[in-house]
Amino acid sequence: MIRVGVNGFGTIGRRVADAVAKQPDMKLVGIVKTKPDYKAKIAAQKGYTLFGVDDKSIQSFKDAGYKPGGNVENLLSQVDVIVDATPEDVGAAYKEMYRKTGKKAIFQGGEEHDIAEVSFVAQCNYDLAKGKQFIRAVSCNTTALSRTLHTLDQAFGVKRARIVIARRASDPDEPTKGPIDSVNLDPVTIPSHHGPDVQTVLPHIPIVTMAYKIPTTHMHLHSVIVSLKENGVTEDRIINAFKEAPRILLVSQKDGIRATAHVMDYARELGRNRGDLYEPAIWKESIKVVDGEAYFFMAVHQESIVVPENVDAIRAVTGSASKSESMAMTNKTLGILN
Amino acid sequence: MIRVGVNGFGTIGRRVADAVAKQPDMKLVGIVKTKPDYKAKIAAQKGYTLFGVDDKSIQSFKDAGYKPGGNVENLLSQVDVIVDATPEDVGAAYKEMYRKTGKKAIFQGGEEHDIAEVSFVAQCNYDLAKGKQFIRAVSCNTTALSRTLHTLDQAFGVKRARIVIARRASDPDEPTKGPIDSVNLDPVTIPSHHGPDVQTVLPHIPIVTMAYKIPTTHMHLHSVIVSLKENGVTEDRIINAFKEAPRILLVSQKDGIRATAHVMDYARELGRNRGDLYEPAIWKESIKVVDGEAYFFMAVHQESIVVPENVDAIRAVTGSASKSESMAMTNKTLGILN
Repeated sequence: MIRVGVNGFGTIGRRVADAVAKQPDMKLVGIVKTKPDYKAKIAAQKGYTLFGVDDKSIQSFKDAGYKPGGNVENLLSQVDVIVDATPEDVGAAYKEMYRKTGKKAIFQGGEEHDIAEVSFVAQCNYDLAKGKQFIRAVSCNTTALSRTLHTLDQAFGVKRARIVIARRASDPDEPTKGPIDSVNLDPVTIPSHHGPDVQTVLPHIPIVTMAYKIPTTHMHLHSVIVSLKENGVTEDRIINAFKEAPRILLVSQKDGIRATAHVMDYARELGRNRGDLYEPAIWKESIKVVDGEAYFFMAVHQESIVVPENVDAIRAVTGSASKSESMAMTNKTLGILN
Repeated sequence: MIRVGVNGFGTIGRRVADAVAKQPDMKLVGIVKTKPDYKAKIAAQKGYTLFGVDDKSIQSFKDAGYKPGGNVENLLSQVDVIVDATPEDVGAAYKEMYRKTGKKAIFQGGEEHDIAEVSFVAQCNYDLAKGKQFIRAVSCNTTALSRTLHTLDQAFGVKRARIVIARRASDPDEPTKGPIDSVNLDPVTIPSHHGPDVQTVLPHIPIVTMAYKIPTTHMHLHSVIVSLKENGVTEDRIINAFKEAPRILLVSQKDGIRATAHVMDYARELGRNRGDLYEPAIWKESIKVVDGEAYFFMAVHQESIVVPENVDAIRAVTGSASKSESMAMTNKTLGILN
């Protein structure tokens, strides 16, 4: 049994904690939270041991009737692997604490690439993570692009990729964040950070990304334009490549899916935890090849796509399972179909 | 004096009517409207003669205290040129009436290309429209792309263009139209109609467009990716080409413009009618060349960018002014800076 702790219980942390709790080869020792809110209440109802970030935080849990397990160091002493799901750049501050204990840590994509030895996407570079102490599960957009570009690269060779990312501006639990009725270039300059970030996983693929925020709360929408090395690739062959690849979902307007709202509603029908969608959704009918360039639309559920990667990264660093064993186990427990 | 009528008084029609009324060489004979609403009231206050679409419509104006000038045919008999700003595909139904009278007509981009002899963008093909009976002022997105791609093509040669268009989903006067919190692929398939439409103006430029609707009411946001024929083109040369081209506006994040909301607020400061922006706004800092491909962001005010084209088209079909004379006069009267 791999003993796992999760530091941070926001959008990613609570999902990773639930996913870890479902793994037959892992034990969720506890989770770290700053304060006793509705998320803490539900975590306690699930039987998770809560840890505070400092004395004040621990006291606030006691005052609210919880029995906290201590602080981050107390949790660390009881685990083999800590998943750091703290807010952007906070992970970097915890790294020294993790390093001293010798415990393995999985950071998130909000941290800089150089916080870890490997920027990780299971189907791209699982074996690179074996035996390492620090791994970074890359961000939602980077995970989606890595899975799909790697698939195209393996099948046909990718000469160059250009991506326009329309980003959901805020998560569903951020009711005060904007914009309303505006497209915010983020950044105004090109490329956005996403292109270089994909290259931390797939260093040999030339890629330029452009990104802006739009008034939505769910899914990033990618417009993908890829020059292929192989000549004469057909739309059908691309569809087949995506069908055969793990953790990529093809959706169709024939099934009435024409919008990100449809994709998320479809995901809720799948019956997974929180209505999450762990795969990027690619519209089958959008796949088009013009003069050697492949075009398609892809939607990415920003809250959940990195969850399977976090689970696989835990097995990769401990060397407890092969890539195919780990991905199969993660897929089965999370309800991922391929 | 060119006698002009405007059939339709929606988003485009009311703007074209105001623009025509400002031209020293034109007389606005009247406008056609279906019913007496707030737009009719303001038109009457401006001294415009209102015409109805049929007897019932004319009666509704009389009942509301107006003195309508008659129906569409009555207006037609008094003009040299009719600007058809009726809703999408309605123009096609009027074409036979216009044809019979021999009067020249300017249609809008919502109509099919083959409704007219020329799909018109002043700086691209003014002279082609001379002496023709039927002209189509192309849509807002096509106008913006034609102006900018033509500029790049003249300066450096355009090998291929790929555009992702995030479309405002509804106009400010459509309070019930969605979506809320969704990205709607429109269409799911690639290319969208915009690429072929640009080719009605610039037939020799290979172009692929992808389009979706987002929850905003102002400006389409274009992410433009253009392969250039000339090698080694720098960002500065592209900036200069846009600076020298007519009816293109460069905006800068240094001036605090980082979002479409900023562009529209800037436009209101310019003091033009309705706060309109007749130029596509290109972010200077977004212009980037990577491996012979130029990238930039461009915002398009969907309600107003076609207005100068409609005015110039009136002069082009009547042969009353050269391209440079007409564009200069239109620019001056509308407050367009270059």
